[in-house]
Amino acid sequence: MNSQKVAIIVAGGSGSRMGSSLPKQFIEIGGMPILMHTLRLFRDFDPQMHLILVLPETQVDFWEKLCIQFDDFSRKFPHHIVLGGTTRFQSCQNGIQALPARAELVAIHDGVRPFVAQETLKKGFQMAAAKGSAVVAVSPKDSIRMLGEKDENHALNRSQIRLVQTPQIFQKEWLVQAYAQPESHLFTDDASVVEAAGFSISLVEGTYENIKITTPEDLLWANTFLKTLV
Amino acid sequence: MNSQKVAIIVAGGSGSRMGSSLPKQFIEIGGMPILMHTLRLFRDFDPQMHLILVLPETQVDFWEKLCIQFDDFSRKFPHHIVLGGTTRFQSCQNGIQALPARAELVAIHDGVRPFVAQETLKKGFQMAAAKGSAVVAVSPKDSIRMLGEKDENHALNRSQIRLVQTPQIFQKEWLVQAYAQPESHLFTDDASVVEAAGFSISLVEGTYENIKITTPEDLLWANTFLKTLV
Repeated sequence: MNSQKVAIIVAGGSGSRMGSSLPKQFIEIGGMPILMHTLRLFRDFDPQMHLILVLPETQVDFWEKLCIQFDDFSRKFPHHIVLGGTTRFQSCQNGIQALPARAELVAIHDGVRPFVAQETLKKGFQMAAAKGSAVVAVSPKDSIRMLGEKDENHALNRSQIRLVQTPQIFQKEWLVQAYAQPESHLFTDDASVVEAAGFSISLVEGTYENIKITTPEDLLWANTFLKTLV
Repeated sequence: MNSQKVAIIVAGGSGSRMGSSLPKQFIEIGGMPILMHTLRLFRDFDPQMHLILVLPETQVDFWEKLCIQFDDFSRKFPHHIVLGGTTRFQSCQNGIQALPARAELVAIHDGVRPFVAQETLKKGFQMAAAKGSAVVAVSPKDSIRMLGEKDENHALNRSQIRLVQTPQIFQKEWLVQAYAQPESHLFTDDASVVEAAGFSISLVEGTYENIKITTPEDLLWANTFLKTLV
């Protein structure tokens, strides 16, 4: 039998970097809010996927109205809404507390990354089942430098560097233990939280299309990319 | 008096990653080959800019025909053509050997990066004049991990990492000395060559729009982005 999979979709963003008053996860691309594309990805991958959506309290009413407006979205794609915290760490904690008892593998994913390839999800859940974690990452296209003391900086060996995306998939127990730690400013993603709890991180290769939509340029790219998929 | 500026534009690419037989630097965006946009950037910044274009020998005839076809491009934007080598390092060496005697500051730039902001060029040449080098770089948007021994990998502090672009601007003498070194597989850009020769690298903040056009998705983005500039 397949292990029970859960996706925690974290949608905490405002519209500030987008120059918009509408939080970016609600902006439409291809005729549908970004967040709906993202939720649909996971359900398309596994019709049994349990979806948890973490939303700021102030956005819940708006989202529920959007769902009705978009062809009764939450009836076709049922999802459990959890209120976000004041930081991403707290939002993830809230999502993890809402995990169903039978959950085994849990993907945490940015609400504004609507272009995960189905193949990435397949490889990711397989790796997480085998190794306990699977964090999606790509190789950098650019040379990489590291800042040092004062004005100094030096080249890093690019072939050893990976740029981390989401989803980041973990055994439920690893996540529960990791998010019991106190919050730290060094936690920039879930992998860094899980690593700090002493677990090892396995990487799975992603695709460059899996962008996080945060700027007007990203939105432009997203709309253009969607047209190529039709 | 302003110091004499030179731009060495390195255009060695084939069309392979683009799924095209036309080398990517010749693909049209906004009605003009990418490479012409790139050359024009530097001349727009400084009408006295000396332009050196490094091209594979097999592409020179094609380029010269393109120039005639595009409104006699090389008459309006005169540039000196230098033959490329079998590696980027050798192509840069050939460009450096062709530097005019009075050159003081030399920008090396990818032929397929047509979106450098004029402000970036301004800040870059100013910094290179003051410090000897100015390498354009941006902060990563993603978390960063570094591969270690065997399967191990660990988080790096993202705030200390920079993703390097071009142009990379140097005092002429630094480049001449740096490119007298034997080639190494650790040289992934000009900054790594200059650093290996014992000079210090100064970084100047770039923009995310300054992409290197290498994939069909990049090309799509470039076309869409150009439309927003009109």
